[in-house]
Amino acid sequence: MQRIPAFLLLYCISAIAFGQSKALVFQSDFGVKDGAVAAMKGVAYSLSPELSMFDLTHEIPAYNIWEAAYRLNQSASYWPAGTVFVSVVDPGVGSSRKSVVMKSKTGHFFVTPDNGTLTLVAENLGVEEVRIIDEKRNRLKNSNESYTFHGRDVYAYTGAKLAAGIISFREVGDSVLKDVVRLPYQKATKDKGTIAGTIDILDIQYGNLWTNIGKDLLASQNIKPGDEVSVRILNKNKVVFEGRILFANTFADVAAGKPIAYLNSLLKFSVALNQASFADKYKIGSGPDWTVHIKK
Amino acid sequence: MQRIPAFLLLYCISAIAFGQSKALVFQSDFGVKDGAVAAMKGVAYSLSPELSMFDLTHEIPAYNIWEAAYRLNQSASYWPAGTVFVSVVDPGVGSSRKSVVMKSKTGHFFVTPDNGTLTLVAENLGVEEVRIIDEKRNRLKNSNESYTFHGRDVYAYTGAKLAAGIISFREVGDSVLKDVVRLPYQKATKDKGTIAGTIDILDIQYGNLWTNIGKDLLASQNIKPGDEVSVRILNKNKVVFEGRILFANTFADVAAGKPIAYLNSLLKFSVALNQASFADKYKIGSGPDWTVHIKK
Amino acid sequence: MQRIPAFLLLYCISAIAFGQSKALVFQSDFGVKDGAVAAMKGVAYSLSPELSMFDLTHEIPAYNIWEAAYRLNQSASYWPAGTVFVSVVDPGVGSSRKSVVMKSKTGHFFVTPDNGTLTLVAENLGVEEVRIIDEKRNRLKNSNESYTFHGRDVYAYTGAKLAAGIISFREVGDSVLKDVVRLPYQKATKDKGTIAGTIDILDIQYGNLWTNIGKDLLASQNIKPGDEVSVRILNKNKVVFEGRILFANTFADVAAGKPIAYLNSLLKFSVALNQASFADKYKIGSGPDWTVHIKK
Repeated sequence: MQRIPAFLLLYCISAIAFGQSKALVFQSDFGVKDGAVAAMKGVAYSLSPELSMFDLTHEIPAYNIWEAAYRLNQSASYWPAGTVFVSVVDPGVGSSRKSVVMKSKTGHFFVTPDNGTLTLVAENLGVEEVRIIDEKRNRLKNSNESYTFHGRDVYAYTGAKLAAGIISFREVGDSVLKDVVRLPYQKATKDKGTIAGTIDILDIQYGNLWTNIGKDLLASQNIKPGDEVSVRILNKNKVVFEGRILFANTFADVAAGKPIAYLNSLLKFSVALNQASFADKYKIGSGPDWTVHIKK
Repeated sequence: MQRIPAFLLLYCISAIAFGQSKALVFQSDFGVKDGAVAAMKGVAYSLSPELSMFDLTHEIPAYNIWEAAYRLNQSASYWPAGTVFVSVVDPGVGSSRKSVVMKSKTGHFFVTPDNGTLTLVAENLGVEEVRIIDEKRNRLKNSNESYTFHGRDVYAYTGAKLAAGIISFREVGDSVLKDVVRLPYQKATKDKGTIAGTIDILDIQYGNLWTNIGKDLLASQNIKPGDEVSVRILNKNKVVFEGRILFANTFADVAAGKPIAYLNSLLKFSVALNQASFADKYKIGSGPDWTVHIKK
Repeated sequence: MQRIPAFLLLYCISAIAFGQSKALVFQSDFGVKDGAVAAMKGVAYSLSPELSMFDLTHEIPAYNIWEAAYRLNQSASYWPAGTVFVSVVDPGVGSSRKSVVMKSKTGHFFVTPDNGTLTLVAENLGVEEVRIIDEKRNRLKNSNESYTFHGRDVYAYTGAKLAAGIISFREVGDSVLKDVVRLPYQKATKDKGTIAGTIDILDIQYGNLWTNIGKDLLASQNIKPGDEVSVRILNKNKVVFEGRILFANTFADVAAGKPIAYLNSLLKFSVALNQASFADKYKIGSGPDWTVHIKK
């Protein structure tokens, strides 16, 4: 039989408390060339050294709220319930835009300016509750003279307290919103035999085109791996690509350099060149001006 | 009553020891395209798997000691006392420049070549003590044939031992320096009604100009949010911008694309375009050749 | 004497189990502009929140298997035995290329498509055993409709289970391979007084040239620090640089801007300009078409 000193018990109990901390995942348009991201992590670490911190990306193009919404949605569901995401793409810092924490129906938390960043996770994970951050309680001490870095002073600070279990979701603030701000955006449609959608985003590292056309819409037209499909890509009303492309499971189903259509890792219709950049070759971008029509 | 096996006690005690480890924060000009940063972290992890490691930035422009000094100063104070920073911008690797650990009066540790990197943290956090690293005791085993990667062989190795509590600050080395090497640099001044300073650095992701003019100097001229100020920017003696700009709290106080002056997150006078790049538009850089004159 | 509640004992035991988890180190050609890396880490974190995760690099040029092989070899040996590396440069995703885990003789694990990525670690660390990943057991649940992101669905998933001790190496899969796929590549040779090698890779951040000529080959020609050597660099058969260069320990041995030859951090013959880019100045690249001849 061993004696257990009281300090040891205390440690173990605190370790259990720490063990309850949740992942804290950062996203921003800050880049990683300066000390901004490290200042946010320092604030979080100061609150709780046991936090597990991760980066989603800090390379969201400056001020691009749509892309912030997309990247959040692209990865959030691969993290367990309880994970706290801090997303700071905040062109309206200091304006009347609200600072909020959204809890999704899946149990994920999102700490962010309420400027449209939550559009896609609200839609796909569901909105359980939205609370306005009470900056009287949840703001870095002595940061009141700084008006331009809420990522550090408000969002990282609040996100860390929430992830560490220092505050409950309720303690974020008393004001509850009915919903988050949602960016208007087009959904894919079908008309007779043709499916029309938009290029939501580029798979930027490889130059692949990711559309908003989901697998169910393809199935409704009986388009299946092995079929050739007619693909027309327009910038506003100007056709920039037109051709028949093999719809297959994966790049290796065509020779290097050849076009291929496939379901991407989010199960959306996508177009690529095997081991080359479709976007570069045909000078294609993303956003509401870029539409795609497909037909079997 | 439960029996506590001895191995369990041992574990808990070692866990307590591990619990005392401090954050280890890396900065360098290595970039993240190769295996250099991972080699440093592997060395640190091999010494203590319980260390919490973070990156400040690895995108300091190659050999740019001033920017290393600035970024360190920008973020260090947001980390708790005891945090160990390893900064490796080391154009003089292998020269007579010394390898040191500085303990600041705030209790932060900085492991670095003593080449000016510590200029700003020495000034702002205060110098408690500076020790030369004794490479006989504190150098990666079997690394003696490598002369060009002290980041891995000396700095990460020493920083990790210090952060993990394997060595005390005293055990870094017996030689104590009176001070660190300091880069000469200009301070902001006022003459009659005009404040003169330099553009210390660009807020690179957004193209904002960060000067060395602090809030006290502005207050001394009674410049306060809501005032318009005359701003003149010179490259050497050539005026590259001249105009009256609103001094306000935050970007949202002017329309998108419009100029604004504000206190940045370090409470220094800064100039920006709301949601656009002032530096790009007027082709402005940073450093001692770039001066700013402001007048109410 | 203290009472130890059962839940506490349970916690401590599980903490011990967690304590056995090994570092999980990611490498890819995904870049860090989107959510791909974060999706992989989310999958890993969901399997075990106690895992320590690190990035080697995600900036391997797209599809460049040789560079993946090089960077893995550059840093793996600085990590302790048991470390699990997940490397995903996978131009053949969905082809017949196999998904494997290699255990090296040094006790490191490498989870990757078997496409040549393991060439250099197999050679330098030795091959203990190679197992094909059994995707029936080791694949993210409900990922069967996704064919293009094995990094997330297979490699991160399997790597995390292995690093966390959820599966043993044997449980990766029952099929054992005799060897890994190896890229053919040239080795340095000597003929009379001349050593011939290739530029394996650029030290990309600084523009230094890293060859495949090791220190033993230099020693065999009695080339030692302080000697001048004749260096000729050819692109295919065209000479792009020719000159005598000081072979020294470190950059500081010559003036800024001057050429220097040295042993790099992997103890290979390298060529640089002190504080400038040799590769930029002479427009030099890397790969089998770039050869170097040196003579005392």
